[in-house]
Amino acid sequence: MKHNFGAGPCILPKEVFEEASKAVLDFNGSGLSILEISHRSKDFEAVVVETERLVRELLNVPQGYSILFLQGGASQQFAMVPMNLLPEGGKAAYLDTGVWASKAAKEAKKLGQVDIVASSSDQNYTYIPKDYSIPADAAYFHFTSNNTIYGTEVFETPKANIPVVVDMSSDILSRTINVADYDLIYAGAQKNMGPAGVTLVIIKDELFGKSGRTIPTIFEYEPHAKAGSMYNTPPVFSIYVSMLNLRWLKNKGGVEVIEQENIIKARTLYEEIDRNPFFKGTAAVEDRSRMNITFVMENPDHEAEFLELAKERGLVGIKGHRSVGGFRASVYNALTITSINALVDAMREFEEKHN
Amino acid sequence: MKHNFGAGPCILPKEVFEEASKAVLDFNGSGLSILEISHRSKDFEAVVVETERLVRELLNVPQGYSILFLQGGASQQFAMVPMNLLPEGGKAAYLDTGVWASKAAKEAKKLGQVDIVASSSDQNYTYIPKDYSIPADAAYFHFTSNNTIYGTEVFETPKANIPVVVDMSSDILSRTINVADYDLIYAGAQKNMGPAGVTLVIIKDELFGKSGRTIPTIFEYEPHAKAGSMYNTPPVFSIYVSMLNLRWLKNKGGVEVIEQENIIKARTLYEEIDRNPFFKGTAAVEDRSRMNITFVMENPDHEAEFLELAKERGLVGIKGHRSVGGFRASVYNALTITSINALVDAMREFEEKHN
Repeated sequence: MKHNFGAGPCILPKEVFEEASKAVLDFNGSGLSILEISHRSKDFEAVVVETERLVRELLNVPQGYSILFLQGGASQQFAMVPMNLLPEGGKAAYLDTGVWASKAAKEAKKLGQVDIVASSSDQNYTYIPKDYSIPADAAYFHFTSNNTIYGTEVFETPKANIPVVVDMSSDILSRTINVADYDLIYAGAQKNMGPAGVTLVIIKDELFGKSGRTIPTIFEYEPHAKAGSMYNTPPVFSIYVSMLNLRWLKNKGGVEVIEQENIIKARTLYEEIDRNPFFKGTAAVEDRSRMNITFVMENPDHEAEFLELAKERGLVGIKGHRSVGGFRASVYNALTITSINALVDAMREFEEKHN
Repeated sequence: MKHNFGAGPCILPKEVFEEASKAVLDFNGSGLSILEISHRSKDFEAVVVETERLVRELLNVPQGYSILFLQGGASQQFAMVPMNLLPEGGKAAYLDTGVWASKAAKEAKKLGQVDIVASSSDQNYTYIPKDYSIPADAAYFHFTSNNTIYGTEVFETPKANIPVVVDMSSDILSRTINVADYDLIYAGAQKNMGPAGVTLVIIKDELFGKSGRTIPTIFEYEPHAKAGSMYNTPPVFSIYVSMLNLRWLKNKGGVEVIEQENIIKARTLYEEIDRNPFFKGTAAVEDRSRMNITFVMENPDHEAEFLELAKERGLVGIKGHRSVGGFRASVYNALTITSINALVDAMREFEEKHN
């Protein structure tokens, strides 16, 4: 058995893979593959409608917000956010909590002034800055809620009197949020929503056309909202698999239930990291992510050996990002406590062997 | 048995569906789904490399051209082409042969001056204009090689002394082309390359940075070329299925072989349209597309009845686009002569019944 701790594209539930696999041969008993049906067919329109409805229900998205399924991942949102929200000559505020947050700010700088309200780059992004003020004259405030590489997460939504934009690629649908605290939420699907190839955007309709810029139609949010994510040919299969995954989440009891599981999963692993004398966490304790758990070994020379042991035990994708080193266990929704226990067991086995 | 004449996303070979379906459960015997592996894994890097190699081999792409797998379909290319090729204050030349060609020109107009060198809108785009001149001072010339809605196709590449850009979404890989005749070729994959969600771009490297504009990194071609289409998380599954489909095409003997089949398929259906007194073609005979065959009935009152008969015979997706009416049989690479014969049989059956 493989335990997939990969950072993304990542594990999805087995039953989702099974149903997706069947639909590649025969979708809904139509005699056609999900890969060969028209995106304008009634069957596929029903998929988009259900996917949208499930997002709205699972995240309690209020009226006045549109839910879009786009392409290009978070990287494309780094560009679309300022194109749509930052007027010519305007200013945007960004919180710098990692490589991705920093890339987002860099793209905004191509279109206007950017105030970095705070940064944790001084300590290799191991913590979330908390004392900062958001300029009231900025067009919007942008932050990244979960920093995949460093294993930090923002649990308290920053308060601002300007529109709040958040990149939730790696923690959306893993915990309850109050959508009304945000004006624009975006997320590459390939963590807790579905496979790579589709991007979720939840946007307050008031924000449409806010920048006043002339931009290519496909990069405006409003045409996608008006067309129900059918402005152009959508990524059919990625949306379909997302729907299956959202159905799975709903059947489990929704975000509240998975959040409790995620808390237990993360606690179990952090407790072992803190207990086991051979390992130590890298992120500030109060900012530890529930999705990406980063840790190193007290003795870096042990890391190759532990990686080998992990491989033998079927633990996949736990090598840390090169900018942090050590290990990263990504423990997304579909990863079970069984996999967490398998990792903990390997850590204890290593300890026993070396004690 | 279903005969899928849909215009796109469209039919792909059965063996491609079968292998894709297996990979959703277990990719390459890894114990992991193709949907949960990292795009940075060696296994997936091999997929991207092979897909690129197959495109290069099947289309004889010369040195000096990069092959990219992007997202957003042709609609995103309508924007990226002028962003990358049209300097501030510059001019671009467009040939207007249909709704999609016209949309491409409209997006370029947002960024500069556009000369429409010729248009067939006067006759509902039923023909390809041939007598026109391309301004030598334009930054590039853009045309659409196959007009899906109207059933017309450009078989002779327009000669220009400026860069030539072509939207080949619906006829790429259906016939041999001389890539050196073009400077930039783009195509949404969802006809003859693979499923929806990935876009093929073949670009002469000389064109990188040509517009001199400051544009978001993700909308520049060069970073994608430098990163081997891994600038950001690519649409993993859509690329993988494209690879399977390109392998299938290669095993069949390549583009030269499929072109001969496509010629026979199209000829068989056009001959019936011309012979059968109940039907007539809508496109100018010399510009008839081999991919999308449009026809109506001499008596429009018969159309509902024929559509019903087609449905009974398992003929799917033959309703014409609303702007042309009647019928459209899309006969892409994976559609077999058996399906063509089934449609011809239905047309003859209709004739016999009404004679």
